[in-house]
Amino acid sequence: VGSRSGRQATRTYAASGVDVGARASALSALLRAAEYAAPASHGRPVPGASGHFAGLVRIAGTTIAITTDTVGTKVLLAERLRRWEEVGEDLVASNVNDLAAVGARTVGLVDTIVCARADASRFRALGRGIRRGLAAARCSLLGGETALVGDLVHGIDLGGTAIGYFPGGRRPVLGSGIRAGDLILGIPSSGFHANGYTLIRRVLEEHRVDLRRPRPGGRVPVGVELLRPTRTYTEAADGLAGVPGVRGLAHLSGGGVRNLARLRPDRRFVLDRWPEPPGLFGWLQRTGGLDDREVFQTFNMGIGFAAVVAPSAIGAARRVLRARGAGDALEIGRVERGAGVDVPRWGLRFEGYA
Amino acid sequence: VGSRSGRQATRTYAASGVDVGARASALSALLRAAEYAAPASHGRPVPGASGHFAGLVRIAGTTIAITTDTVGTKVLLAERLRRWEEVGEDLVASNVNDLAAVGARTVGLVDTIVCARADASRFRALGRGIRRGLAAARCSLLGGETALVGDLVHGIDLGGTAIGYFPGGRRPVLGSGIRAGDLILGIPSSGFHANGYTLIRRVLEEHRVDLRRPRPGGRVPVGVELLRPTRTYTEAADGLAGVPGVRGLAHLSGGGVRNLARLRPDRRFVLDRWPEPPGLFGWLQRTGGLDDREVFQTFNMGIGFAAVVAPSAIGAARRVLRARGAGDALEIGRVERGAGVDVPRWGLRFEGYA
Repeated sequence: VGSRSGRQATRTYAASGVDVGARASALSALLRAAEYAAPASHGRPVPGASGHFAGLVRIAGTTIAITTDTVGTKVLLAERLRRWEEVGEDLVASNVNDLAAVGARTVGLVDTIVCARADASRFRALGRGIRRGLAAARCSLLGGETALVGDLVHGIDLGGTAIGYFPGGRRPVLGSGIRAGDLILGIPSSGFHANGYTLIRRVLEEHRVDLRRPRPGGRVPVGVELLRPTRTYTEAADGLAGVPGVRGLAHLSGGGVRNLARLRPDRRFVLDRWPEPPGLFGWLQRTGGLDDREVFQTFNMGIGFAAVVAPSAIGAARRVLRARGAGDALEIGRVERGAGVDVPRWGLRFEGYA
Repeated sequence: VGSRSGRQATRTYAASGVDVGARASALSALLRAAEYAAPASHGRPVPGASGHFAGLVRIAGTTIAITTDTVGTKVLLAERLRRWEEVGEDLVASNVNDLAAVGARTVGLVDTIVCARADASRFRALGRGIRRGLAAARCSLLGGETALVGDLVHGIDLGGTAIGYFPGGRRPVLGSGIRAGDLILGIPSSGFHANGYTLIRRVLEEHRVDLRRPRPGGRVPVGVELLRPTRTYTEAADGLAGVPGVRGLAHLSGGGVRNLARLRPDRRFVLDRWPEPPGLFGWLQRTGGLDDREVFQTFNMGIGFAAVVAPSAIGAARRVLRARGAGDALEIGRVERGAGVDVPRWGLRFEGYA
């Protein structure tokens, strides 16, 4: 890592202020200390789902999936551009896409808005975005919390928690059946979604990027391109989860391609047909001087959702994808014996998820 | 409102920076814009529960309750005292108590930690507190999110979302059966719980309160007293919800006694037997020069949870309370025709919830 104007260049996510390793060890300290086994009369957590994209719990004969996520510092870009609809949609999408990754059908979510001031026009725009997200995921807003805590936040923090279920006796898709020879399909993302914005914003600042102008090769102002809301994969995933032979699903959000290793740590996910990332990704990488390893483990790099499918089920999976608005899905790799995630074209090898 | 040292004295919650009215109108703008009716295949929100303490949704024959809340700026007091276990417990309790108020049995929760840095010793203490909260509510930690967003928060924001269910065909307790003549039982709180800390901290600052010393009449340092974790009412409420004649339950958190009006806007809740608030409340009120109206609509004033009970069911309700660790519950008032919430001893009358 070089240095620039006397400060550390933000060539990595950690240098931009997000220390993923420190987070992992703090989190494991918390989880060990918090361990408690509740009586079965209060529901039974499904083992095996720990570390996956959503928690699962059996309640009165029904399995419920639950997951929580925040929009992160993408809101600071929204603030700068005074556009709130996109991050409202992100609030929904980032949560429901995690539910989709365990094969659950979305039911709804609660939102949490933590801010210094509540102002009606901003909240109305957030509401419009939330509505778009709900409509894309066909689910309900089930409640929310608005905390006015100016002493605690600079801007506005947007989070949510989503719940889903498994209709008609469908079983959660957790990846345990994945075997060597399975194929990996990928659904293109709509941009950076809502992950890695601390790094993105550092690049924008250090290189004084003018957000009002298009990047070379871009057609709209780069600020608009960067704010584009997260694609919602729930309808496609809901369909895939009903196809026998679809063995694993992954939301490629924070952690990028490493998310595949969450499905099975004892299989090797070889992404040998990963497509050229859209121009926006290459532009950010070049502008920031970010290395390939960093971008593939921080951003979605053009593919936001993946499905691991038995070769015999590829036809059925593709039909479902076409019928559910994801006809642009493509084969991006295959499963081998071993462990970790490879992206051979870029010479990358990741040992595991984190 | 007077002024002191050139700035507005913080005699009200609004003057301390929390404008509850602005929040209400911003929130209603958001909710109107977000309105969307999901197809029934994605679960059916239960009408009637809107505006209540938790959302309700029917999923595959099971009704699930969901609610979300944050610890708010009490964490800034935790930071100052370098004690994290208490607010970890608050994270759980503030959420599960809202579930308890619709008569749901707690299943579990996800936590959301939004912070600048993750450090293991702080996270371990938070984990210990979360464990206490889980054990008190007999529920599971079902997942969580840790967002490192130093550009967005000063300290650490702690939130959660809890889910619960209605065992054995029990119906949600939403207050619709409440009628004139019903009695109101109250369960004493353990202090300020986790609401109104923006106002509490302003009082502490303006009057340079030494947190290491007891207040007059106190036995432990006032900082310790102010940090005491929220009492968990779930076991008591779970028992009450199974008693025929228990017609309404309320968690008296943010909004204080006004929360009773959420049960039925067309009944009058007369709290004519409200007990003298514990010394800590009176001390804060005197120190800050806060008026009665403000403290009763901001803090729990000594009673953290209330149950509205038919006179014929009082004996059964008291037996359940004694058996479930709430033998200290007492009769605090009754229901009359009319609307709003009265606390006659302090000459207070509130028209509704907000």
